[in-house]
Amino acid sequence: MIYELYYWPSIPGRGEFVRLALEEAGAPYLDVARRSGKGSGIPAMVRVLSGRAATPPFAPPFLKAGRLLIGQTANILQFLGPRHGLVPTSEAGRLWTHQLQLTIADFVVEIHDTHHPISGTLYYGDQKTEARRRASAFLKDRLPKYLGYFEGVLGQYPARRFLLGSRLTYADLSMFQVMAGLRFAFPVAMHSAARHFPRLSSLQAEIVGRPRIAAYLKSSRRIGFNNEGIFRHYPELDAARRSGRSVSKPT
Amino acid sequence: MIYELYYWPSIPGRGEFVRLALEEAGAPYLDVARRSGKGSGIPAMVRVLSGRAATPPFAPPFLKAGRLLIGQTANILQFLGPRHGLVPTSEAGRLWTHQLQLTIADFVVEIHDTHHPISGTLYYGDQKTEARRRASAFLKDRLPKYLGYFEGVLGQYPARRFLLGSRLTYADLSMFQVMAGLRFAFPVAMHSAARHFPRLSSLQAEIVGRPRIAAYLKSSRRIGFNNEGIFRHYPELDAARRSGRSVSKPT
Repeated sequence: MIYELYYWPSIPGRGEFVRLALEEAGAPYLDVARRSGKGSGIPAMVRVLSGRAATPPFAPPFLKAGRLLIGQTANILQFLGPRHGLVPTSEAGRLWTHQLQLTIADFVVEIHDTHHPISGTLYYGDQKTEARRRASAFLKDRLPKYLGYFEGVLGQYPARRFLLGSRLTYADLSMFQVMAGLRFAFPVAMHSAARHFPRLSSLQAEIVGRPRIAAYLKSSRRIGFNNEGIFRHYPELDAARRSGRSVSKPT
Repeated sequence: MIYELYYWPSIPGRGEFVRLALEEAGAPYLDVARRSGKGSGIPAMVRVLSGRAATPPFAPPFLKAGRLLIGQTANILQFLGPRHGLVPTSEAGRLWTHQLQLTIADFVVEIHDTHHPISGTLYYGDQKTEARRRASAFLKDRLPKYLGYFEGVLGQYPARRFLLGSRLTYADLSMFQVMAGLRFAFPVAMHSAARHFPRLSSLQAEIVGRPRIAAYLKSSRRIGFNNEGIFRHYPELDAARRSGRSVSKPT
């Protein structure tokens, strides 16, 4: 079976969390909205969104897997996980991986809202004042709290390489993407706080070094970070440009 | 087995989505942070949050079920679902229910952020100006979009009583709570938009009428909406007080 992934073609966004899982799995998939021709492109995606599917997605990404149409990033990942060895087989292991993924999802919303605190339908330029305030609070309170949490999970046992221990799950792949995105969006804040999350940095490096991921990151299938997506680099929202102070220690 | 639910004792919040599922199931549970005595109260909750659990929750609610410690509301619900007949047994049915639940979770974040668009660590009074802007955008764009989506799901077949059809799932219970919360928070906007979501109103009434839920809602176990939780009533954020206009039609 060839999966069909539907997501906006010009940004990594939430689609990238699914893409990383498919790439690590070596699973064949079509990135439908990025293809041209009949039944492809954005029109094909919009057709599903505005159509009469039995399980309509609220928003991209969504995945077609045979007769299934699955929406919500974390839900897609928990569907793919057991099929491709990206999650333990035990119920406890699957629940814990999903719990981590949902916490990553919460984090991603907060990262996005640093540049869109008022509305996703307004431009950044129309909510810049509010964005400065929200980004400032985010860097001070939320970034250290989230990174501290995941660093703590990685630090539970000295030999732990991945969030669950010795074994990679889809949550590690998503965590890699979040770390890469944060370094793109907030280079100053992330640099000055880096000493507080050595294990997350190691995890990021570990994922980059996996053969399939390394090949993928070099390919044209990978969409780079840009200022249309979740992770955006606006220097005025980053730490030092505003206050000269670094973010606080993770709690 | 007696479940142990951990959540802030003074607000319905996200804990209520779990409570509704447990109540509908008739499952025995302890609402740990609302109890007094040894091993109870907020200190017991904080102890888990700051302790060294193998699967630490990022935030409440979390559920102890035997040896399992499960965090993230939607994750707890998908754990409880198959144990208590609150989700279909098929994989497709479980995925679809969870997809709906995660969309409800996204909606809940946006509802919360109408009164806290800048930071959860600041008081409402410290972000009132931004809250007005965000609430205005929410009532204009997001509320109709989300309610229109769920109304559309309910409207797929004329005889559909619940989101999945003839059978109640945990997502219906959560949807009830969201509708009740929205009517508390935005009575003017919800009243003027009510004609656009008759099926969601019927669903809300249907849930209220279920014997176990009806008994629960009358009991002291139910925590009423208040201005410390997700759903808050600030008249200045509701529709008519600001512009006199109703929210737009769901798209």
